[in-house]
Amino acid sequence: MSRQFLAEGLKLSGGDYAIAGVVAVVALIALVIGYFLLKEVLATGQGTAKMQDIAKAVQEGAAAYLKRQRNTLSIFGVVVFVLLFALPADDWNERIGRSIFFLIGAAFSFTIGYTGMWLATRANLRVAAASREQGGREKAMRIAFRTGGAVGMFTVGLGLFGAAVVVLAYTGQAPKVLEGFGFGAALIAMFMRVGGGIFTKAADVGADLVGKVEQNIPEDDPRNAATIADNVGDNVGDCAGMAADLFESYAVMLVAALILGSTAFGASGLIFPLIVPAIGVITAVIGVYITRARSNEGGLVTINRSFYISAIISAVLCSVAAFVFLPTTFAEFGQEYANDGNPAVIATVAVIIGIVLAGLILRLTGYYTGTEHGPVKNVGKTSETGAATVILSGISVGFESAVYTAIVIGAAVFGAYLLGGAIALFAVALAGTGLLTTVGVVVAMDTFGPVSDNAQGIAEMSGDVDEAAAQTLTELDAVGNTTKAITKGIAIATAVLAATALFGSYQDSITKALSGIGANAGGVKSFIDTIVSPNTLVGVMIGAAVVFMFSGLAVNAVSRAAGAVVYEVRRQFREIAGIMEGTTRPEYGKVVDIVTRDSLRELATPGLLAVFAPIAVGFGLGTGALAGYLAGAIATGTLMAIFLANSGGAWDNAKKLVEDGNHGGKGSEAHAATVIGDTVGDPFKDTAGPAINPLIKVMNLVSVLIAPAIVQFSVGPDASFGVRLAIALVAVLVIVVAVVVSKRRSTVIADTPAEKQEPAKTA
Amino acid sequence: MSRQFLAEGLKLSGGDYAIAGVVAVVALIALVIGYFLLKEVLATGQGTAKMQDIAKAVQEGAAAYLKRQRNTLSIFGVVVFVLLFALPADDWNERIGRSIFFLIGAAFSFTIGYTGMWLATRANLRVAAASREQGGREKAMRIAFRTGGAVGMFTVGLGLFGAAVVVLAYTGQAPKVLEGFGFGAALIAMFMRVGGGIFTKAADVGADLVGKVEQNIPEDDPRNAATIADNVGDNVGDCAGMAADLFESYAVMLVAALILGSTAFGASGLIFPLIVPAIGVITAVIGVYITRARSNEGGLVTINRSFYISAIISAVLCSVAAFVFLPTTFAEFGQEYANDGNPAVIATVAVIIGIVLAGLILRLTGYYTGTEHGPVKNVGKTSETGAATVILSGISVGFESAVYTAIVIGAAVFGAYLLGGAIALFAVALAGTGLLTTVGVVVAMDTFGPVSDNAQGIAEMSGDVDEAAAQTLTELDAVGNTTKAITKGIAIATAVLAATALFGSYQDSITKALSGIGANAGGVKSFIDTIVSPNTLVGVMIGAAVVFMFSGLAVNAVSRAAGAVVYEVRRQFREIAGIMEGTTRPEYGKVVDIVTRDSLRELATPGLLAVFAPIAVGFGLGTGALAGYLAGAIATGTLMAIFLANSGGAWDNAKKLVEDGNHGGKGSEAHAATVIGDTVGDPFKDTAGPAINPLIKVMNLVSVLIAPAIVQFSVGPDASFGVRLAIALVAVLVIVVAVVVSKRRSTVIADTPAEKQEPAKTA
Repeated sequence: MSRQFLAEGLKLSGGDYAIAGVVAVVALIALVIGYFLLKEVLATGQGTAKMQDIAKAVQEGAAAYLKRQRNTLSIFGVVVFVLLFALPADDWNERIGRSIFFLIGAAFSFTIGYTGMWLATRANLRVAAASREQGGREKAMRIAFRTGGAVGMFTVGLGLFGAAVVVLAYTGQAPKVLEGFGFGAALIAMFMRVGGGIFTKAADVGADLVGKVEQNIPEDDPRNAATIADNVGDNVGDCAGMAADLFESYAVMLVAALILGSTAFGASGLIFPLIVPAIGVITAVIGVYITRARSNEGGLVTINRSFYISAIISAVLCSVAAFVFLPTTFAEFGQEYANDGNPAVIATVAVIIGIVLAGLILRLTGYYTGTEHGPVKNVGKTSETGAATVILSGISVGFESAVYTAIVIGAAVFGAYLLGGAIALFAVALAGTGLLTTVGVVVAMDTFGPVSDNAQGIAEMSGDVDEAAAQTLTELDAVGNTTKAITKGIAIATAVLAATALFGSYQDSITKALSGIGANAGGVKSFIDTIVSPNTLVGVMIGAAVVFMFSGLAVNAVSRAAGAVVYEVRRQFREIAGIMEGTTRPEYGKVVDIVTRDSLRELATPGLLAVFAPIAVGFGLGTGALAGYLAGAIATGTLMAIFLANSGGAWDNAKKLVEDGNHGGKGSEAHAATVIGDTVGDPFKDTAGPAINPLIKVMNLVSVLIAPAIVQFSVGPDASFGVRLAIALVAVLVIVVAVVVSKRRSTVIADTPAEKQEPAKTA
Repeated sequence: MSRQFLAEGLKLSGGDYAIAGVVAVVALIALVIGYFLLKEVLATGQGTAKMQDIAKAVQEGAAAYLKRQRNTLSIFGVVVFVLLFALPADDWNERIGRSIFFLIGAAFSFTIGYTGMWLATRANLRVAAASREQGGREKAMRIAFRTGGAVGMFTVGLGLFGAAVVVLAYTGQAPKVLEGFGFGAALIAMFMRVGGGIFTKAADVGADLVGKVEQNIPEDDPRNAATIADNVGDNVGDCAGMAADLFESYAVMLVAALILGSTAFGASGLIFPLIVPAIGVITAVIGVYITRARSNEGGLVTINRSFYISAIISAVLCSVAAFVFLPTTFAEFGQEYANDGNPAVIATVAVIIGIVLAGLILRLTGYYTGTEHGPVKNVGKTSETGAATVILSGISVGFESAVYTAIVIGAAVFGAYLLGGAIALFAVALAGTGLLTTVGVVVAMDTFGPVSDNAQGIAEMSGDVDEAAAQTLTELDAVGNTTKAITKGIAIATAVLAATALFGSYQDSITKALSGIGANAGGVKSFIDTIVSPNTLVGVMIGAAVVFMFSGLAVNAVSRAAGAVVYEVRRQFREIAGIMEGTTRPEYGKVVDIVTRDSLRELATPGLLAVFAPIAVGFGLGTGALAGYLAGAIATGTLMAIFLANSGGAWDNAKKLVEDGNHGGKGSEAHAATVIGDTVGDPFKDTAGPAINPLIKVMNLVSVLIAPAIVQFSVGPDASFGVRLAIALVAVLVIVVAVVVSKRRSTVIADTPAEKQEPAKTA
């Protein structure tokens, strides 16, 4: 456990207040810059009327989905808001703050997601339009990247602003309130990731299965009733879900750093973790503005250069900040700490570890999912021996890349921890804030992907884009595939760092709760002893199991929802005359409605699992098992998330390789094999994989929040096995009911004969 | 940690010696019964000359493979034999015993594997021959099941005999010597599982890719040069590998129970864990002899009945034994323990937990992989929408079944642990011995699978079997698919129980080593504190990562070796005239040689990873990280093993469903989709999945063995960070070199243009 300096003196100095105030202002400036970027994007040309028509349909579908999702999630949010009051807190101020900032975190998360979607559905039209103009490639790339820049600015701006306000308003009680803030952000992000992920892949897979496979018409063909839904999906999944997810990664990492900072240094530990991301805001602005496409280099090279430049600037500025704002010896906390090392050096190196980690993940992911490297080429090659070998080689690539990425992340955690000495956990959290300095650019990189993808969709559907412009959009789309995979890698890295830090604060939380009850050293020791037992091992196993279950549920949900799409599109082809001839428009809205309904219904089970499983384990099996549970979930979750993201990315780009004319090219058997690989990869990389990232954080935060209550009912005057058991049983019951309900749904679909499988009436 | 009663009094009473002697005799009787079963099988008819020809080719190929494998492994065995001397031990007697019994365990493991293969390659011919006779179904089933019975008797006989001899000869030092015995068994079993698994699936996938996919000739068609290799593979993988694996499961579980028994009760704790499996021998004999096919019921029903009957008899006899041989109060160990519960009751319930666990896994696995239940039907149904949905639904089934199976196993561990009270860990181990009582029948059930599968192959290739007989063999083969999946479930359950017990003994080992160094309570506490830190979390992550890596390596190895088969078979079709017309025999031996060479080469990397990864983590990151490592490996390994086994089983049986005429039947697009699923599932269920089981045990035993050495170099007079670092670096280096070598191989194959990819010359 980390040492605690001055942990009781949770007061900020005047200078500290001033700095936190400056950070809040920097955050607001980020929002303003984001607004200007947004204005710039919206000011560009909007193409032909046909293109605008299509974009409008997508905009409306996406907005309708998010509105319904907001209504669903509001109910959930209010329930949690109330439940949070039931958990122990020092006083009512803290209790109210925690619940209020839970709502604020949730609202911010949703707002970022909504804004990301709103802007993306407008930007894609403009990117498509720009591709038709003189110098189209440069213009299109600029619009796509500035769109991402705007979303990136909103992400870091809102995250940093929220955290700074909590620090200014609550000081000593900030950690508890921040738990609420982070929890709100993570919970909503998880739902948006899961819901959006199901939507996008159900529509995509459904559209492909009927369109490409059965009717042999191209992707994005307007005769396919699912095309608009497919495009809506790209926006609610890849834009709204992703933006909320990255906001949550940002916010929770920041929250973890602030909690551990205050544990290590008291209130003054709340300042430095704010300074580092504030520097990140500045470098992100630089990164966005220096990104200009050059005609003689690939798009990925341009974007990577911006990333590296802004990362290096961050590293330099953070080092300077560490020596300006941190002491160079621990002696000022008391002479006994004089030999504990140099805080400024520790902080500098930790932050740099985080920044370097981001760069390494960028390279690793690029290697495993980029079309120009061995792994994807190898997957492409296996297409010559059929779909089975494509699947197997893609799975191998996923496993392998997961291992190396996990080892790099583990090395970063371990390095920061070793280096940190007396403030080991805080050093881990600082490495996390180092990673955060890159988030602005990362969001910009990521948003690039779906915007380009959709621009291509609009171009294809409208038929108003010539060959050269189409070529430009295809290139941008391929770049987007890789940047999307990179973002997922970095998001999961922040998840591990944040979760490790929170894992530490979970243990702090237990120790504090124990001392609050008045347990003596012997009591604490025997309590800790029970942590190191087969219980823990069972906990690790359940934690790992929940990750498997969550992944399975997500993949299953996509299959089910895609099935509904297939039946509806088939029905329209069958019943509406003239679709195939192009004389009648299919009913796009019907498909959007069905997917909206299904994905909102499907997100309940994985969501409830995430919230209630830690409650069941914690109250049922105890704090040791819950610690094991978290460890198991973090470890397996990390590997699974990277495996799913990278095998999916590799399959997608292997297909692109074949489409570029390798191994027989489009229409060959090899192509058919890679299409199967890509279809398998879709829910991997866009539904299950990315949702694991917020899942880990939600489970960690739930554990930190309930830890004091578990201790309260485990030892001391309130100890009651009955109460614990009752709570655990209720949690198990909730999970079981949720699983049974979703299982029953799948049975009903599977048992209905195909000809009767009309989609049910939509609400 | 469990309480230790009389742990110093490691002496057996005269009565104890007598009981251990009786157990050894029971073990010998099992071997004799096995011999009679073997004689009975060999005495049956051998069919036509053509059938015998084919069987002979398979026998020779399998024997040649195992001989080369033995030579390869011998070198490895000798190296480890010597290395074991370097590890700390109480005296030279213990040190020598540990190394000698390492060799004995290894030799037993190999012998069982070899015998299993030897008998199976003879039995399959006889099963095929019997199917042609009057009342063929009953006769064929009887031969297949008795073959399994013989292997089962050898498995439990050798395992129990070895353990009893160690107890008789070493008494107080038995635990350390048993570690060696278990390690030898697990290490060789892991290599046989990996090597055999690669062989069988490389041949199978290679044969299918050229035969079924490219040339459109049926499975087992004699024109395919890879058919004999395919049949050899079934025997070296499913028979030799599986038999060695189950022997290892049996031996290691027994070892773990004996170690913990002696920790809890001293020498007298060595007796009861021997009695329970001795009872298992008796009930296994009953189980084998009562299995008689009835014409009005499915084969699986018959086999399951035998399983349940023998399980119930075991439960009853074990309860009786507990009350006869165990005290009914802990008071006899000292009045202070008077209220610690009733040892006889604890032992009875623990053993019954293990037996019930076996039954539950049987049901769960049957549900998820059997053709008559929802999951496989659902996978079959998704074949209507193509291969991608087949893959996705199979993966979902795998994830789901992994979760439920893991939860059931976790509940058993937790239940035994809670119930155990003062002897908690020992209770977990006793639950494991309960599971062991079913191993005899389980081996019989498992061997049933490949023998039937091969009988069908011989029948098909010879063309000497009529329609009715073919029908019988197909039915038995389908039953075999499910029994194989069940065996894997039970094997992984023993892995978890044994690993949990060993995990406990790993901690004991550290505490003992610390007290040997003279660390006081404070020292021990601070040492334990370091266990509960982010280090541990990093360890958990690395442990989970190794499981992913191992799985990826195994799958990759199959792809590579299958590629070599594809090129060779293609070459033969191209260069040898008359194969396709059936006028020239293809060169079967060439393919067998290639697969032999490749699979022996490929098993090195995963094998080295298993042995050296714990060394790297333990010496490099410390005991806490190693504890985390084990926990991560056990948890993720369990889930991964079940996921791989059950999704593979579900795909296989979904294909059978379609072949039985559902969803369009053979030759339809749905059938093609399920063939792709089955091909993906092959290395899942027969290579990577089952190898994880011995992997977990090898890693646990390595950790237990090196734990004292890690402590020695971490605290006390010998503490040296340099030595630890050096050892860790060497271990890392070994792994890196192994991985790079195997990677380079894959690059070479992928980069060679297809037309030049002649298989390399064989040695």
